[in-house]
Amino acid sequence: MPVPQHIFDPPFNVRRASHVVLDVTNLAAVRTFYENAIGLHVEDADSEAVYFRGYEEQQHHSLVLRKAKENACRRMGFKVGDEADLDKAASFLKSRGIAADFSEQPFQGRTLQFIDPLGYPIELYAKMDKRPHLLRRYDLYKGCHPQRFDHFNVFANNVQGTVDFYAQLGFRLTEYAEEDGPNGRIAAAWMHRKGNVHDFAITNGRGPRLHHFAYWVPTAMNILHLCDVMASSGYVSNMERGPARHGIANAFFLYVRDPAGHRLELYTSDYNTMDHDHDPLRWSLRDPRRQTLWGAPAPKSWFEEGSPYTGQAVHDPLFVADVIVAS
Amino acid sequence: MPVPQHIFDPPFNVRRASHVVLDVTNLAAVRTFYENAIGLHVEDADSEAVYFRGYEEQQHHSLVLRKAKENACRRMGFKVGDEADLDKAASFLKSRGIAADFSEQPFQGRTLQFIDPLGYPIELYAKMDKRPHLLRRYDLYKGCHPQRFDHFNVFANNVQGTVDFYAQLGFRLTEYAEEDGPNGRIAAAWMHRKGNVHDFAITNGRGPRLHHFAYWVPTAMNILHLCDVMASSGYVSNMERGPARHGIANAFFLYVRDPAGHRLELYTSDYNTMDHDHDPLRWSLRDPRRQTLWGAPAPKSWFEEGSPYTGQAVHDPLFVADVIVAS
Amino acid sequence: MPVPQHIFDPPFNVRRASHVVLDVTNLAAVRTFYENAIGLHVEDADSEAVYFRGYEEQQHHSLVLRKAKENACRRMGFKVGDEADLDKAASFLKSRGIAADFSEQPFQGRTLQFIDPLGYPIELYAKMDKRPHLLRRYDLYKGCHPQRFDHFNVFANNVQGTVDFYAQLGFRLTEYAEEDGPNGRIAAAWMHRKGNVHDFAITNGRGPRLHHFAYWVPTAMNILHLCDVMASSGYVSNMERGPARHGIANAFFLYVRDPAGHRLELYTSDYNTMDHDHDPLRWSLRDPRRQTLWGAPAPKSWFEEGSPYTGQAVHDPLFVADVIVAS
Amino acid sequence: MPVPQHIFDPPFNVRRASHVVLDVTNLAAVRTFYENAIGLHVEDADSEAVYFRGYEEQQHHSLVLRKAKENACRRMGFKVGDEADLDKAASFLKSRGIAADFSEQPFQGRTLQFIDPLGYPIELYAKMDKRPHLLRRYDLYKGCHPQRFDHFNVFANNVQGTVDFYAQLGFRLTEYAEEDGPNGRIAAAWMHRKGNVHDFAITNGRGPRLHHFAYWVPTAMNILHLCDVMASSGYVSNMERGPARHGIANAFFLYVRDPAGHRLELYTSDYNTMDHDHDPLRWSLRDPRRQTLWGAPAPKSWFEEGSPYTGQAVHDPLFVADVIVAS
Repeated sequence: MPVPQHIFDPPFNVRRASHVVLDVTNLAAVRTFYENAIGLHVEDADSEAVYFRGYEEQQHHSLVLRKAKENACRRMGFKVGDEADLDKAASFLKSRGIAADFSEQPFQGRTLQFIDPLGYPIELYAKMDKRPHLLRRYDLYKGCHPQRFDHFNVFANNVQGTVDFYAQLGFRLTEYAEEDGPNGRIAAAWMHRKGNVHDFAITNGRGPRLHHFAYWVPTAMNILHLCDVMASSGYVSNMERGPARHGIANAFFLYVRDPAGHRLELYTSDYNTMDHDHDPLRWSLRDPRRQTLWGAPAPKSWFEEGSPYTGQAVHDPLFVADVIVAS
Repeated sequence: MPVPQHIFDPPFNVRRASHVVLDVTNLAAVRTFYENAIGLHVEDADSEAVYFRGYEEQQHHSLVLRKAKENACRRMGFKVGDEADLDKAASFLKSRGIAADFSEQPFQGRTLQFIDPLGYPIELYAKMDKRPHLLRRYDLYKGCHPQRFDHFNVFANNVQGTVDFYAQLGFRLTEYAEEDGPNGRIAAAWMHRKGNVHDFAITNGRGPRLHHFAYWVPTAMNILHLCDVMASSGYVSNMERGPARHGIANAFFLYVRDPAGHRLELYTSDYNTMDHDHDPLRWSLRDPRRQTLWGAPAPKSWFEEGSPYTGQAVHDPLFVADVIVAS
Repeated sequence: MPVPQHIFDPPFNVRRASHVVLDVTNLAAVRTFYENAIGLHVEDADSEAVYFRGYEEQQHHSLVLRKAKENACRRMGFKVGDEADLDKAASFLKSRGIAADFSEQPFQGRTLQFIDPLGYPIELYAKMDKRPHLLRRYDLYKGCHPQRFDHFNVFANNVQGTVDFYAQLGFRLTEYAEEDGPNGRIAAAWMHRKGNVHDFAITNGRGPRLHHFAYWVPTAMNILHLCDVMASSGYVSNMERGPARHGIANAFFLYVRDPAGHRLELYTSDYNTMDHDHDPLRWSLRDPRRQTLWGAPAPKSWFEEGSPYTGQAVHDPLFVADVIVAS
Repeated sequence: MPVPQHIFDPPFNVRRASHVVLDVTNLAAVRTFYENAIGLHVEDADSEAVYFRGYEEQQHHSLVLRKAKENACRRMGFKVGDEADLDKAASFLKSRGIAADFSEQPFQGRTLQFIDPLGYPIELYAKMDKRPHLLRRYDLYKGCHPQRFDHFNVFANNVQGTVDFYAQLGFRLTEYAEEDGPNGRIAAAWMHRKGNVHDFAITNGRGPRLHHFAYWVPTAMNILHLCDVMASSGYVSNMERGPARHGIANAFFLYVRDPAGHRLELYTSDYNTMDHDHDPLRWSLRDPRRQTLWGAPAPKSWFEEGSPYTGQAVHDPLFVADVIVAS
């Protein structure tokens, strides 16, 4: 694949992946799952929406559930440096012919929303309402002690195109998986802005769909405890994969499905990538340690199922890298 | 010191340390501490008493709080093999001229109560009301996930006499600390019935007083989390010593004081001692690793303060092994 | 099934499962596995045998590898209370028409060897050569910090017969799995002598064969680290099942296969069972939480493969409880 | 105190704290400490110097020991974005009248060295020799599994001046402690470039001296294991403070002293700070939770002792905030 160059002077400054907005048909059941099993803090709630944050987060929300007629991912949110970056983003998108609209969003103020050329609904903002972090409120900790939103992982029917678009925005490649050989095509990519392994990861498949979003937890012990809590709370069938360790990112992970079917990763243990000369790590699709360092296979659902984006059609991938399932 | 022989055919069969009954002047405050910070399960409660158990315990209680006019330890409870052992115990005590009375105690049935020759109030029973264990009710876990009652540690003004009495009852010495030299006197002893390091430990000092009772927790991580929870719940001054590791027992520990001043140890990581040829481990009082493998000194309160037993006078120790504080 | 009564006055006093003797064709490769990956301490070795122990063990060995022409389990070792118990055992076996022979075994002295009526080769002894424990030699810790030998688990073609024989020897049932219905047959049993969940467990299947032996490790974190070490030492295919939690025993486990194919369980977190009124816990074969609390299925090999005993023929089980594989 | 503004367009781009160069009189003894107890990877060594790195680090070294006649800190190293940043740095320093020299340093190429106006010897570089990271070489892990260099903490005799100088270079304040009242003076500050709590922290005291440098480790369990390893390796007196949790940064920490007296912090668990609107957290000097969330006091040595910088005179602080020791 053509590996994109690191760009250090992007058209606007995305700081990090910030929050996800999910449509769910059963708001009460999904809230219970995130509040009591996962242990996210409910910051605000009404009959139409619930706003959650992790224990270190100093802003109003990183997960929003909205009552809807279909289960889907409504938006992926990224935070930019400041208000001027929002204006630069608007100019950039306009110059590329991408429609984008400013609006006021609850608790996060001026927000720029658009559908990227690959079909992903994105929103950018600079300042969200602040809240004191809860790091030292250990008396409130529940579930797996989720600390902060970390990243998105999406199914893309055009991985190379998606990588190239986000590389222009300053997202830098940290790891990628590709077919062997001189014309090997890229099948998966991990890209970051904030200085760890990823803010945005892209997997070949029917897309655009959301594969998962992820929260960072303090240690593997919190993830093991979550397994126990889920097993004793009626959520045993919501545990889809893990706990185990990825070769990718060296992450210790658990993948769970919420009652609406959205996939959440709880993970810990990645590494720093903020050096400008940090080289991306290439994985051969034939290396099974990429998926699971410890050898256990992922279930079929993990390769095939994902959340559609509200209002976005899903397309078959441009190619099928069949070994990905086999690994 | 004269190290007592292991006795394998005791006059009656004590299985293990089982429970403690504490007098407290502020029942509500002490309950809140054990229920919300430590995380013990409240099995029963009324205006006069609260009954707690750990998550693996299949019997009604291992900690009883009783409303009283003075903070004190009312009873130390041991479980015997069966009802016949209770009768053998009664005979044995009578033969030694020790007054003992049978009574029915709430939730634990036929109970034999006595004051041992050293002044410790003991109760023996064979069958307590059963409850399903909560090991797999991870949705209920709180605090440090206390799993089971483990042992008592008492101040004795006559350590050798106390060791000798309990050795007759089949308690076997696992570790002990003594003065150096041919006439070195014993300053502390750890004795067991159940097969780990201790059910009953004895420390030289003003006695009889209760130094602490202990619950076993799954891992050191649970103890670290308890520190965080206590720090954020207004209990920072209730943390007296630790977390750290003892040389003795290889135990990872935290000592806390409840609002009535009773001392509780949370600990994990000891070892098996059920072999009949298991030799006691001797520590020189001059070896600082006994107290804290990691070198940090214990506060003065830990060496000096303890809970009196209800109605029992306290006496100065027969000797002072002053290096014990220095270590 | 007929659940056997707890027997508290057995014909002789078995204290605990003590050690396993394994025949291996490639002594060097198997030694490397236990020494460098698992982290057991090599206490002695020559060209014919290697002797290992865990860090808390105060006796010479708990695992013996012997160079042989076939990979097999040669002996399962149990420790009795004292030398008199060995003589009582000899008398008991003679009275049942079971051939048994005394011999001197290296490092463990007077040893009574026999084949039990079900075909399992057993050896009993009272005193093994002592060694100082290594608990506080943290500078030597490797692998998963294996602390002590814990138990055997065997395939039996006659589970009820095996349970009944060992119940006579004072092994007490802690958990069991049986078919539903009034005539439900027992498919698995966990029995103990030392006061935790098991010294000897029995699983329905082609037998007699060894399913696994187990070492106790301090925490789940040590098991996760072992997975990482195995993955980076060329042992990824030796990881057979886990890490995960059993419903049975509440144990956190990992099953691995040594280079000779013998199965080893690393586990932590069980519970105490020494109370005389401790009731066995029944599991329906239809309850999937028995096998894995977290829902992930075990691989077929785990249900089907095991180590033959040296010189013992293997028989089909008396019945097939087919749901066991399905769970 | 005057809290400096966050600067997002600094004169040159410092990415992060990168490495420390220490002078030591006993090279062999100090190497043994870092290699065998702490567990850092030795990347290169000769008779004059030893180069270490953590397991995730993809560059040649993050700790350099140099044989010398006095124990001192020779240099603190920061990595900049690229070679152009080095030239910008040279221009900036020249414009401020600060002498700075380019040289080739072993394994890290073109390096700009200078003494900052406060007396700290700094070196900047853009590209160090690369090495494959060792994250997945778990078979090599030792000690506390140190993963990466994280930050410096220095004694400054002029905290406000030091904060102001580094704020000009784009270091952003995350936490600070100051006297109460309208004219409260700043007594400690934590500043970052890489997006977590600190790359460079400043403490009031006799300075310039190095208080400590820090490595990030995966979990608290690694730190507890290090305590055990140090206790069994003859390093018990090298453990100076902890393990415990700071209020500051929410960090779980252990402070140790190497055989040359240099202080090293092993820590885990901080939080992200890359948002441009991230507000600094103020601590009153009277709040004891700042130093230790759990209440245990730090030893006097921790407040008073530090490493001088090679060739730099040490001065008394401009003021004494005496409550800092009391907390």
